[in-house]
Amino acid sequence: MKIITFGEVMLRLSPPGVERFTQADSLTMHFGGTEANVCVSLAQFGFQAAHVTRFPDHALGKAAAGYLRKYGVDTQYVRYGDGRLGLYFLETGAGSRASQIIYDRVDSAFARIIPSDIDWESILRGADWFHWTGITPALSQGAADCLLAGIQTANRLGVPVSADIVYRSNLWQYGRRPQDIMPALTEGCTLVLGSKGLFSDLYNVVGSTFQEAGRAMMKRFPNIRYVTDTKRVSVTASHNQLSAKLFDGHSVYKSRLHDIRPITDRIGTGDAYVAGLIYGLLTFNDLQRAVEFGAAASALKHTIPGDVNLATIAEVETLASGDTSGKLKR
Amino acid sequence: MKIITFGEVMLRLSPPGVERFTQADSLTMHFGGTEANVCVSLAQFGFQAAHVTRFPDHALGKAAAGYLRKYGVDTQYVRYGDGRLGLYFLETGAGSRASQIIYDRVDSAFARIIPSDIDWESILRGADWFHWTGITPALSQGAADCLLAGIQTANRLGVPVSADIVYRSNLWQYGRRPQDIMPALTEGCTLVLGSKGLFSDLYNVVGSTFQEAGRAMMKRFPNIRYVTDTKRVSVTASHNQLSAKLFDGHSVYKSRLHDIRPITDRIGTGDAYVAGLIYGLLTFNDLQRAVEFGAAASALKHTIPGDVNLATIAEVETLASGDTSGKLKR
Amino acid sequence: MKIITFGEVMLRLSPPGVERFTQADSLTMHFGGTEANVCVSLAQFGFQAAHVTRFPDHALGKAAAGYLRKYGVDTQYVRYGDGRLGLYFLETGAGSRASQIIYDRVDSAFARIIPSDIDWESILRGADWFHWTGITPALSQGAADCLLAGIQTANRLGVPVSADIVYRSNLWQYGRRPQDIMPALTEGCTLVLGSKGLFSDLYNVVGSTFQEAGRAMMKRFPNIRYVTDTKRVSVTASHNQLSAKLFDGHSVYKSRLHDIRPITDRIGTGDAYVAGLIYGLLTFNDLQRAVEFGAAASALKHTIPGDVNLATIAEVETLASGDTSGKLKR
Amino acid sequence: MKIITFGEVMLRLSPPGVERFTQADSLTMHFGGTEANVCVSLAQFGFQAAHVTRFPDHALGKAAAGYLRKYGVDTQYVRYGDGRLGLYFLETGAGSRASQIIYDRVDSAFARIIPSDIDWESILRGADWFHWTGITPALSQGAADCLLAGIQTANRLGVPVSADIVYRSNLWQYGRRPQDIMPALTEGCTLVLGSKGLFSDLYNVVGSTFQEAGRAMMKRFPNIRYVTDTKRVSVTASHNQLSAKLFDGHSVYKSRLHDIRPITDRIGTGDAYVAGLIYGLLTFNDLQRAVEFGAAASALKHTIPGDVNLATIAEVETLASGDTSGKLKR
Amino acid sequence: MKIITFGEVMLRLSPPGVERFTQADSLTMHFGGTEANVCVSLAQFGFQAAHVTRFPDHALGKAAAGYLRKYGVDTQYVRYGDGRLGLYFLETGAGSRASQIIYDRVDSAFARIIPSDIDWESILRGADWFHWTGITPALSQGAADCLLAGIQTANRLGVPVSADIVYRSNLWQYGRRPQDIMPALTEGCTLVLGSKGLFSDLYNVVGSTFQEAGRAMMKRFPNIRYVTDTKRVSVTASHNQLSAKLFDGHSVYKSRLHDIRPITDRIGTGDAYVAGLIYGLLTFNDLQRAVEFGAAASALKHTIPGDVNLATIAEVETLASGDTSGKLKR
Amino acid sequence: MKIITFGEVMLRLSPPGVERFTQADSLTMHFGGTEANVCVSLAQFGFQAAHVTRFPDHALGKAAAGYLRKYGVDTQYVRYGDGRLGLYFLETGAGSRASQIIYDRVDSAFARIIPSDIDWESILRGADWFHWTGITPALSQGAADCLLAGIQTANRLGVPVSADIVYRSNLWQYGRRPQDIMPALTEGCTLVLGSKGLFSDLYNVVGSTFQEAGRAMMKRFPNIRYVTDTKRVSVTASHNQLSAKLFDGHSVYKSRLHDIRPITDRIGTGDAYVAGLIYGLLTFNDLQRAVEFGAAASALKHTIPGDVNLATIAEVETLASGDTSGKLKR
Repeated sequence: MKIITFGEVMLRLSPPGVERFTQADSLTMHFGGTEANVCVSLAQFGFQAAHVTRFPDHALGKAAAGYLRKYGVDTQYVRYGDGRLGLYFLETGAGSRASQIIYDRVDSAFARIIPSDIDWESILRGADWFHWTGITPALSQGAADCLLAGIQTANRLGVPVSADIVYRSNLWQYGRRPQDIMPALTEGCTLVLGSKGLFSDLYNVVGSTFQEAGRAMMKRFPNIRYVTDTKRVSVTASHNQLSAKLFDGHSVYKSRLHDIRPITDRIGTGDAYVAGLIYGLLTFNDLQRAVEFGAAASALKHTIPGDVNLATIAEVETLASGDTSGKLKR
Repeated sequence: MKIITFGEVMLRLSPPGVERFTQADSLTMHFGGTEANVCVSLAQFGFQAAHVTRFPDHALGKAAAGYLRKYGVDTQYVRYGDGRLGLYFLETGAGSRASQIIYDRVDSAFARIIPSDIDWESILRGADWFHWTGITPALSQGAADCLLAGIQTANRLGVPVSADIVYRSNLWQYGRRPQDIMPALTEGCTLVLGSKGLFSDLYNVVGSTFQEAGRAMMKRFPNIRYVTDTKRVSVTASHNQLSAKLFDGHSVYKSRLHDIRPITDRIGTGDAYVAGLIYGLLTFNDLQRAVEFGAAASALKHTIPGDVNLATIAEVETLASGDTSGKLKR
Repeated sequence: MKIITFGEVMLRLSPPGVERFTQADSLTMHFGGTEANVCVSLAQFGFQAAHVTRFPDHALGKAAAGYLRKYGVDTQYVRYGDGRLGLYFLETGAGSRASQIIYDRVDSAFARIIPSDIDWESILRGADWFHWTGITPALSQGAADCLLAGIQTANRLGVPVSADIVYRSNLWQYGRRPQDIMPALTEGCTLVLGSKGLFSDLYNVVGSTFQEAGRAMMKRFPNIRYVTDTKRVSVTASHNQLSAKLFDGHSVYKSRLHDIRPITDRIGTGDAYVAGLIYGLLTFNDLQRAVEFGAAASALKHTIPGDVNLATIAEVETLASGDTSGKLKR
Repeated sequence: MKIITFGEVMLRLSPPGVERFTQADSLTMHFGGTEANVCVSLAQFGFQAAHVTRFPDHALGKAAAGYLRKYGVDTQYVRYGDGRLGLYFLETGAGSRASQIIYDRVDSAFARIIPSDIDWESILRGADWFHWTGITPALSQGAADCLLAGIQTANRLGVPVSADIVYRSNLWQYGRRPQDIMPALTEGCTLVLGSKGLFSDLYNVVGSTFQEAGRAMMKRFPNIRYVTDTKRVSVTASHNQLSAKLFDGHSVYKSRLHDIRPITDRIGTGDAYVAGLIYGLLTFNDLQRAVEFGAAASALKHTIPGDVNLATIAEVETLASGDTSGKLKR
Repeated sequence: MKIITFGEVMLRLSPPGVERFTQADSLTMHFGGTEANVCVSLAQFGFQAAHVTRFPDHALGKAAAGYLRKYGVDTQYVRYGDGRLGLYFLETGAGSRASQIIYDRVDSAFARIIPSDIDWESILRGADWFHWTGITPALSQGAADCLLAGIQTANRLGVPVSADIVYRSNLWQYGRRPQDIMPALTEGCTLVLGSKGLFSDLYNVVGSTFQEAGRAMMKRFPNIRYVTDTKRVSVTASHNQLSAKLFDGHSVYKSRLHDIRPITDRIGTGDAYVAGLIYGLLTFNDLQRAVEFGAAASALKHTIPGDVNLATIAEVETLASGDTSGKLKR
Repeated sequence: MKIITFGEVMLRLSPPGVERFTQADSLTMHFGGTEANVCVSLAQFGFQAAHVTRFPDHALGKAAAGYLRKYGVDTQYVRYGDGRLGLYFLETGAGSRASQIIYDRVDSAFARIIPSDIDWESILRGADWFHWTGITPALSQGAADCLLAGIQTANRLGVPVSADIVYRSNLWQYGRRPQDIMPALTEGCTLVLGSKGLFSDLYNVVGSTFQEAGRAMMKRFPNIRYVTDTKRVSVTASHNQLSAKLFDGHSVYKSRLHDIRPITDRIGTGDAYVAGLIYGLLTFNDLQRAVEFGAAASALKHTIPGDVNLATIAEVETLASGDTSGKLKR
């Protein structure tokens, strides 16, 4: 299977363990971005997965690409140019102390991307899936333009398109509102991850239950075949409960509930769900199994440092089948 | 608000993570002392907070002062001279294995302090609060003398005085008993932190409940307006339950119960309560809110490495209001 | 008390914290092996404990011996020669992600041991206990031969012999089956740790309950005075429940149930039980107390990084008596 | 003595040791900026030293201020507001491999500073020295405006002003040329650090020797009493030779030549010279001694990790007197 | 340019800094192997470079492949199967204390490779260079057979072949002598790296000078167009001098002499020369420039931790041109 | 050979690398003491070596003993009791910045030792050498008394005695002068390490050259057969030159001069000389070879982190023979 993802990749910098920013003497490095996280997961599951992005043309940009390659991502479509590397600083909480992120991604090399940087035709030809999120069109007009071109190309080539329509109000600084931009992008989607609330806010699509809201989305955007979402109960920063559901227009498939503690790293757990679900949809002929696979992948991601999910298929399947024991494997 | 605290600051040395002393190859450095911990907390909450102490006149003494300054403490009243830097070695436990402290503080530069080292008049003029604990008079006659002078100056200047009357039997090596020394010091106090048992042991003040014992303390020491204490249930070294209560002569104000797990660092959690309570008393016109703020500050301290509480006002208020979710802040 | 143990010691290499192998930049070193782990525990409890093994004659072999000596083991009977140092790579899991071991111990210096390397007579004379496990005879004919000679010498000298009859199917590569080798070794044993299932698989000794199976073992192997086993419920990789039982031919002595969380390091927890039990049998005139001591030792080992148990007698007794509070010791 | 400095402070992030950026898993944190580096040095020498700057109003901005305070800098004049924290990434070279810096300081909180942020009158009243560098006016119009106001206030209050007129061509992005801005700033200076080449490039002031160029500068800018510069021979990244000279309009005072190897950290060594020289000018009545003190301070800075010089007066004087032996002090 | 290399990749484990093995608590991980080191260098110089090898089918084998990919190597031809991952333990010396290697590579997954594992035809089609070393045929008959097939395929396809004919007497354990195996492999070579001594030992080819010996090699093996070697003077473990020479049948091209101190990591410096030379031969039409590029690449590798050379083309050219200054690049 | 040494062992705490105390966040642990350092060296050379000392009866005291055992020292004569563990803080310099030690050893468990703690008769029976230094009698009357008893017992049993008569003026706080104590201790010595200056200061023994002073010492103390000393030229903290000489009453044997750079750790290098010399005297029938072995051992110690010399006999002999190349050993 060949997967294409598109979006910004940031350098993540975190104090060791649960130190506060003011205590730190060093910062641990990871790289991540919601779309690239999905790409790494799918590469780890054995898919051929390429990420499309733009990095600054210096050693840190190259280090970012090296990080993706290390975890199996094809970086041949990465472009290098001016601008900075997007950053985010993550302080990891514990118990009732929340984790905190300080974003520092303004005017990144990715935000300066323009449509002529990307030859979508050659990238998407032969692909089996294209994934994007609501972060990308929030960053710059150029990024939004590139994305629209990518979705339209995917549609023309018959490549299924998924979107995590996440909305972050502190992005969207370039003068457009998500309500102006997101609908045209969502038109081309096969699978949408989002909540009732978001459907209403972004598209004015309303439904009293997830199922009804999903049905309304499918009516408004006829390309959509699947609507999905996760539900998280945050007991403390070290203890969450997670489940997922998938609606195919007929039935809602709900995953088991995962009781997750301790939490090593909560970042990228939503992306791990998306990747697990895509893997499941492309591999199993069984929607229940697909949503279980996605939810279990997400649960396992909570145990792995960094943004990307490095759980193996075997590990995900063990948990998806309900075995939470974590018994030592020799 | 201007706060003055007085007491020894030690270098704390701990094996990484939960290693035992015999396994360690390096020791993590923090600095702390019960009174200075209160000072740092109040500085972090935005108060002007100065700590009065005496350090050895060498690089480690200067490093200790630098540590306090870094976290906002005014070190202009620190004196430097002969003697060693007090130390303590902390091994952090987990689950049913207890944490252990090896103290190495005998004959420290602080224990050699004498009244002429401190100009209390100029230090306390304009101050809004003065805080001390039962550790200080236990260390040396000089320290006890300095403290008494400080309390008397505070009383003369109308500065409220608080005391954590903690009693450690393995201190008090200089030939006096706490029963000889503590009463005169307690005379000048506005707020006392201690348990029924301590009131009885130190002052022969008896009461069958916390409220009655508090009332008896107020009778014996008419300056006292508040008596307070915390209650801790130690389920394991990684899981504690904590609450606090405050008695003002009329009512007992009880905080909510905090279920704390995992515990990152239990040291200084009592000091965090005291600081939170002082902050509350000086800021809110609401004793219930003050005791909730103190208890929440203490609970959050358990998640922070080191002796000092680096939780922000916003974080404390979130938890004080009952939100334990630790949800990621972006 | 003088204790002799015999078996391979490996270098253990683990990624920091809960990192996956592919994320690691460095590997933390420990040394361990099931029999040597027992030896270290007993040395830590104050017994004179010597481990018999064979290391490669290079700096890593010497480092392994130094590690044992550091923790109190007498290494005078260690032999040095050709062959490699056995290794194992351990990835530590968390929550529902299991820990994983990659063994790399083929053709080690220990596997090349031959009977003439060991003068059992002088080693075992005056000893109070000899311990072995089912790992050793699985490694090579030479190791099995050495072991048999050791057990026979111990029997001749009247030294009690214990065995953890653990069976690992991926060992036993040198052409013999455990069913061929284990019975003769078990003949000489005073105490056997194993489950009903193992008794049946290895010796075709069957019993419907632990007690019956134990009785059948004692019938088949008349030297056996004690049969013991532990029971573990693996809730997650971070949360286990553990108890132990000991059968002396008359009664079954059951330890309390230990609820263990968080788990720092699960490796060597079975060995900690064995060492605690041996300590108890040789020290207390009370089988219930012995099995409680063993179980509490095992529970505490879960909180200590590395393969070996570094809990003190006082710590074990505190937990054995039911105090799980882990209260800070000053 | 009371010293005021003004300029941006950046978070510096470096791979451990001499690792390349692409190899790093973590980045060591320091904070620094050419003017703040001077401020820290003078604080370490016992002067009262305050740094004026503007930080983002988040945890990293506060950490930066804490870093300055730890090393003795008065941060009461620091302002907090919008914008990011300036960063630079430093890869440390060795031998013939050069160190490399990737700057990431565009649009920092400091660059957004405006004159109304700073009350120069109250800051500079009573000060004994004011120091600035050519980095500040290169960052933004606001920074240049603030600086000019500061210099003019200093002049009005009779506070001596020093400038390191360093020119970095990749700064100066806001539409002005240094030739437009620097002359008015240099007008108010008592001491200028720069080379013949810079005098010519920035002010069109020409002289065939350092002495002649210095004399020409003094003619063009009559407030200047001292012109100074350092000379560095870079044998390799690990081995430099350094000397300094100071011209007072009459004589050139040359320091001894320092042969520096190995080099631990070359960053901030010029700033260490400036601080040492200012210290010398304000302390000694001896220009030769002042320039020797400055040069020795700079040489010692090469042995200290981070941007700031933490050498003590005693250490500087030992080296300034020609003792290079580095003999162990017990 | 497309480059193919073939050989074993080992996990390298080293104590931190210059600690001895017996002192270490952790081991730093790198991966390397003489041929893969060449491959990484050429990938870093921008060539398309693929390494052919065989790894164990477990997480460490995958980590090894990830390491190569991170640094730009194409790993599509890597095979996975049974056997262990080759290891070596490196203790880094300093001054007059030598570095030491303990190899632990017996019976690795690579040593178990067999010709049917590799489809040389498809791998080498379109390649511009093929590189091997004398380590590979020393490991097993299977490795030697694979290599011979690769060289013959390269010859048939017209792909130039280079060999570093390094001889290690402690390898060659599988029953063949290098004198039996190396000549047939050397037949197909275009470029050979080796010394007079080696030519004599391996091929009985004799010459009194490097030039004469080279000429004799070209006579014996008519495919050879270039003979090359490096010369190292080891002053101490921290200070070496290095130069290289290249003979093309007509002239000897000698590089400048590099005085290298300090030395960060001496491993892989010969491989860095080979890679630099291959880059030079394929890029410059100038043998002198090629040998200078190779020697400078090797010199720079001494400053880089790990086995692989991460110097950039620009860095190599700076040093190749004689600039040793290591001046900070901003 | 069986060696006995006697003296205090301290915990050494150092900032990582060349950080200053004020920069450190953690401190690296080593244990050392001049006499124990000699003991470890001789244990590493294969001698049976036991150290006699007294540690506090807590986990740090046990860790100190474990450290000695790890490196081969027999700790059966160690006593445990009250008092603290002696400490010293070491900041490592570089280039012209000196290393610095802050001692914190007052009132240690060792200083509280008394003669009845040690059964010299059983310890020294069968020993081949006893070593002490001038540090021990400086610490307390009890330590001096114990030492005298040890020397007298050694003399009675015919065990050769060596002394490094090092004088530290900041010790000797218990009311006696070295001139009062040292002569009686020196009476019993076979070998003395010291300088002309020390001979004069401590014993009023004068000689114009080392040889003459040595002869005078032998006259004053007829048991002395050897007088020895080292000579160090401290070029910088990173570059020293070292040689040694030995006088046997007839000739002066001078070692070659060792040019040592870089210096990893200068502490314990004198002790390494003493140990090497003792090894040489007991092993070789050749005084020149003995002094060369001692000097080379000392030179190699400079490359090894910590107080103790971990160089092997083979390494020392290589350097003693003049091979400084540090060539990689595979």
